[in-house]
Amino acid sequence: MTKVKLDEIDHQILDMLIDNTRTPFTDIAKKLLISAGTVHVRVKKMEEAGIIQGSSLTLDYVKLGYSFIAYVGIFLEKTHQTKFVLERLIGIPYVTVAHITTGKFNIFCKIRARDTQHAKNIIFKIDDIDGISRTETMISLEESINDKKRLMHTIFNEL
Amino acid sequence: MTKVKLDEIDHQILDMLIDNTRTPFTDIAKKLLISAGTVHVRVKKMEEAGIIQGSSLTLDYVKLGYSFIAYVGIFLEKTHQTKFVLERLIGIPYVTVAHITTGKFNIFCKIRARDTQHAKNIIFKIDDIDGISRTETMISLEESINDKKRLMHTIFNEL
Amino acid sequence: MTKVKLDEIDHQILDMLIDNTRTPFTDIAKKLLISAGTVHVRVKKMEEAGIIQGSSLTLDYVKLGYSFIAYVGIFLEKTHQTKFVLERLIGIPYVTVAHITTGKFNIFCKIRARDTQHAKNIIFKIDDIDGISRTETMISLEESINDKKRLMHTIFNEL
Amino acid sequence: MTKVKLDEIDHQILDMLIDNTRTPFTDIAKKLLISAGTVHVRVKKMEEAGIIQGSSLTLDYVKLGYSFIAYVGIFLEKTHQTKFVLERLIGIPYVTVAHITTGKFNIFCKIRARDTQHAKNIIFKIDDIDGISRTETMISLEESINDKKRLMHTIFNEL
Amino acid sequence: MTKVKLDEIDHQILDMLIDNTRTPFTDIAKKLLISAGTVHVRVKKMEEAGIIQGSSLTLDYVKLGYSFIAYVGIFLEKTHQTKFVLERLIGIPYVTVAHITTGKFNIFCKIRARDTQHAKNIIFKIDDIDGISRTETMISLEESINDKKRLMHTIFNEL
Amino acid sequence: MTKVKLDEIDHQILDMLIDNTRTPFTDIAKKLLISAGTVHVRVKKMEEAGIIQGSSLTLDYVKLGYSFIAYVGIFLEKTHQTKFVLERLIGIPYVTVAHITTGKFNIFCKIRARDTQHAKNIIFKIDDIDGISRTETMISLEESINDKKRLMHTIFNEL
Amino acid sequence: MTKVKLDEIDHQILDMLIDNTRTPFTDIAKKLLISAGTVHVRVKKMEEAGIIQGSSLTLDYVKLGYSFIAYVGIFLEKTHQTKFVLERLIGIPYVTVAHITTGKFNIFCKIRARDTQHAKNIIFKIDDIDGISRTETMISLEESINDKKRLMHTIFNEL
Amino acid sequence: MTKVKLDEIDHQILDMLIDNTRTPFTDIAKKLLISAGTVHVRVKKMEEAGIIQGSSLTLDYVKLGYSFIAYVGIFLEKTHQTKFVLERLIGIPYVTVAHITTGKFNIFCKIRARDTQHAKNIIFKIDDIDGISRTETMISLEESINDKKRLMHTIFNEL
Repeated sequence: MTKVKLDEIDHQILDMLIDNTRTPFTDIAKKLLISAGTVHVRVKKMEEAGIIQGSSLTLDYVKLGYSFIAYVGIFLEKTHQTKFVLERLIGIPYVTVAHITTGKFNIFCKIRARDTQHAKNIIFKIDDIDGISRTETMISLEESINDKKRLMHTIFNEL
Repeated sequence: MTKVKLDEIDHQILDMLIDNTRTPFTDIAKKLLISAGTVHVRVKKMEEAGIIQGSSLTLDYVKLGYSFIAYVGIFLEKTHQTKFVLERLIGIPYVTVAHITTGKFNIFCKIRARDTQHAKNIIFKIDDIDGISRTETMISLEESINDKKRLMHTIFNEL
Repeated sequence: MTKVKLDEIDHQILDMLIDNTRTPFTDIAKKLLISAGTVHVRVKKMEEAGIIQGSSLTLDYVKLGYSFIAYVGIFLEKTHQTKFVLERLIGIPYVTVAHITTGKFNIFCKIRARDTQHAKNIIFKIDDIDGISRTETMISLEESINDKKRLMHTIFNEL
Repeated sequence: MTKVKLDEIDHQILDMLIDNTRTPFTDIAKKLLISAGTVHVRVKKMEEAGIIQGSSLTLDYVKLGYSFIAYVGIFLEKTHQTKFVLERLIGIPYVTVAHITTGKFNIFCKIRARDTQHAKNIIFKIDDIDGISRTETMISLEESINDKKRLMHTIFNEL
Repeated sequence: MTKVKLDEIDHQILDMLIDNTRTPFTDIAKKLLISAGTVHVRVKKMEEAGIIQGSSLTLDYVKLGYSFIAYVGIFLEKTHQTKFVLERLIGIPYVTVAHITTGKFNIFCKIRARDTQHAKNIIFKIDDIDGISRTETMISLEESINDKKRLMHTIFNEL
Repeated sequence: MTKVKLDEIDHQILDMLIDNTRTPFTDIAKKLLISAGTVHVRVKKMEEAGIIQGSSLTLDYVKLGYSFIAYVGIFLEKTHQTKFVLERLIGIPYVTVAHITTGKFNIFCKIRARDTQHAKNIIFKIDDIDGISRTETMISLEESINDKKRLMHTIFNEL
Repeated sequence: MTKVKLDEIDHQILDMLIDNTRTPFTDIAKKLLISAGTVHVRVKKMEEAGIIQGSSLTLDYVKLGYSFIAYVGIFLEKTHQTKFVLERLIGIPYVTVAHITTGKFNIFCKIRARDTQHAKNIIFKIDDIDGISRTETMISLEESINDKKRLMHTIFNEL
Repeated sequence: MTKVKLDEIDHQILDMLIDNTRTPFTDIAKKLLISAGTVHVRVKKMEEAGIIQGSSLTLDYVKLGYSFIAYVGIFLEKTHQTKFVLERLIGIPYVTVAHITTGKFNIFCKIRARDTQHAKNIIFKIDDIDGISRTETMISLEESINDKKRLMHTIFNEL
């Protein structure tokens, strides 16, 4: 759990990649008045340290026909089934997030579906996993914030 | 809400970019036996159609000192304050996700913090937004799934 | 609250009209071996007694683009606002049913909407009625039963 | 799920039938300045398209001795029993509406009964269906709105 | 369920007995300017009609060492056990009231105990009845009203 | 809070009066082989000590047209209004029991009404008392136990 | 349950020991103008009477790496398992407090852990005890009061 | 938040003081085969480092007449009142523990009282603090575990 030390240059590189992961290293180099080689070395270092784990496309799910989002709270019969149930959830690609949580639910997850009918099928598939006793669903009427960039900029300014 | 039509080539390009958004277009071209120019045109088209909205870095928040995740359910005094409250939430960078939801909460959001003490401060900041009457917090003990790639591959296979 | 007495003939007439309110009286008359005039008199009598209040079309809401059904539980600030709030609800045509209820809600209603987005707008309109402090929504994933004919046949067999 | 196209004439015909399903076609024809045959053809078309599914009598349940309405939320032991339980509910004619829902209940239904004693018997019958673990009942103190005409008129004006 | 008709004299007799069931009939007679025999006949009539079921002592439970009152909500495993569970509850004399209820509990009862320790034992005894899955207890901090005389006077004035 | 000492004779007298408060003292005397004067003295003593507070008629409320029982949980705006609210509740004769309680309600009371409609009016009257923010109602489907005699016999056997 | 009588001297001795249990008896004696022997005798007496049960160190758990506090509410499958479950809880040293409670939980306990990860392991260990059906956790964001001295001083001033 | 390093000797000293804070240093010294001076130096060091904050008497509250324990969950009107409310709670000596918590309560506290009547007064005093909107109380039926020694021994063995 020893945290990696990042310097000012690292932060600025990350700050630019956050806005667009495809920014060419030569552009970053020019802007920071360093060589492209240095950018390459720094990024490599942060990848090896595990800080940068990769990059992901931001797609418009509504345009792709997936406009339905729901949160599903799961009650287990017994907690020692947690691991087993999580493995089953991984097998359902519509479950994009899952947490073991405090409070009334054992596992709390987020699903994306095409519509109400599709959501029903996904929820039924979850409900039928062995070890799950009950689920409670909360439908999203609007995804108002889904943005980690504000957080990332804040982290790099804090460091 | 007219959905964009994507053909087999588009899907395969997306499929490769999903795994690594920095994959050079020449690599994609070679693999799909098309020209790099075609890859460029296709990606451009999907960006203009709004399907590809951008790309984001996947960082290791634990390594960056942000290991604490919580879900905060918000009760408003009156719903016509929803827009106003969401704008205030955008001003708190630790709020990475926020949804208007059905069920007992009016707004449901996800926060990332350094530790319990930091989470308390963030929750207090949320609680002090005008129009919020009460909040309920659910702490994540483990983020077991956070992965949209399984979903994206499924979507492209479905299309 | 004195209940009206209906005889066997009345029941059989009702039983046939329940299945199809447009059944011509001559058809009913033929089947029951009575005159069409008698059918007319009996139906008139039941209308005047207030037992038959009218008839309504059964439309396919999904085909009409209204596939989204939700139940909305309403908490009032003070119960003496019940009447006022109900009048406002009547002004929202998407509210097809509303009850004053025991339990945690003061008023419980059913809405029909085109989709999630539309439902959000309706719920927001309800939330903004003066005197309503909060609402809780429960989304229907499938309308499995919506049929009063089974009940009506049972009532007439019981009488 | 392709929606049927209705023109202005169709809407006006529906609008008149909504108020009284027994309105003679000749009356409709006269009012809309078209032939009765046209009315007949249009109604037939809408019936075949499945938009008009039939018509139902509106009876005064209080006068028929059925003044007690309750909503019953059902918790299942396992969701894969949903279909089985719904079939059993269809066998209880006092259950006039049933939905598969999100939120804390698996199935949510509406019952009509003669009085408290009768309601108790119906609830007990529901409770005894295999696969149901628990039910929660909410009593209606007053049915303030039960009217789909406002909705139907709105739909036809929107189209 | 045909209600018994009571006249003005009956009401006045009941009204006096409500305040003190041991009031001698001669006193009642004198006050109402009727004969003691008439009082006797009337009381007999109301006993036979089942309106007067008996009379009970009002004791000071605090002075008798029973100052602890609690309400216990019972969740059953299956409702068809209701009758069986109620018979077991009758076997626990500290359960003075029990109702089959709507809402979240199946059975709701009231207990009187000597103190916290005694209450715990009673609750444990209830919890151990077969068919009971869980109970929830609500402790009375003060019995502010326990009086049916106001109701009885009101009923007799209404009749 | 010094409890009164009762001897064996006192218990037996109470035991007989519990079953019927109108039992003549001469009958009690005969059965216990003591003089009627002794019975009189003992009862007087227990009345003066406050143990016997009086006696109340047990009426059949269903026969009197009062078959509807409900429990109403009250949430106050501020607890210092407790006394004020209880005084208002005393003014509603249909409230036969009221307790200040732990748990989610501030005050918990029991009402008796003629029917659903009447109950609604009583609940509305309660809801309109100043200082009450909300109420939750639980309807009794059957009063299965309402009997303090089992408790009283137990107390006297314990002493 | 006969309470021990303590006089003014006893109170003052306790009052001084409450602030610091290691205060030498000679210091107490000097301050109260009595002999050290008297202090010794009085403390001995209070120990033998069971009033003083011992003394405990007040450690700074944050400095010792135990800054995470949570309350865990436990639902049992059946209450007769209470004793068995409590014995298992004693075997988990991180459970510092446990109560049998009224309300929705059967057992309510307090745990201290190093961090979120450690808390998760402790909660899982609790969840896996036989007879426990479910738990609900509430995380402490700040321990604002943990002090029995104010109470003890109050008790001694009251006596 | 830099944790203090303790060595084996420190642990053994703490281990002995945990069992009895009044253990003379000479006894500890003898047992650990070190000088009493060393014990004194080590204890001093741990006090200055803030690890040992003091020591407290363990009294038998039941014998002192305080057998009633309750947990009180507090809902605030607005969270920025948290500090103000906590200061008021400190002024009520019967509140021995208070936490700012996640979940449905804003503040969660523990009270000790003489009996039900006394608890009611304390709860009312809490309810009347400005900024508190509502409280929910959970009564302890038995304090089954209240012991930090198991934890302390575990911590010292872990270090």
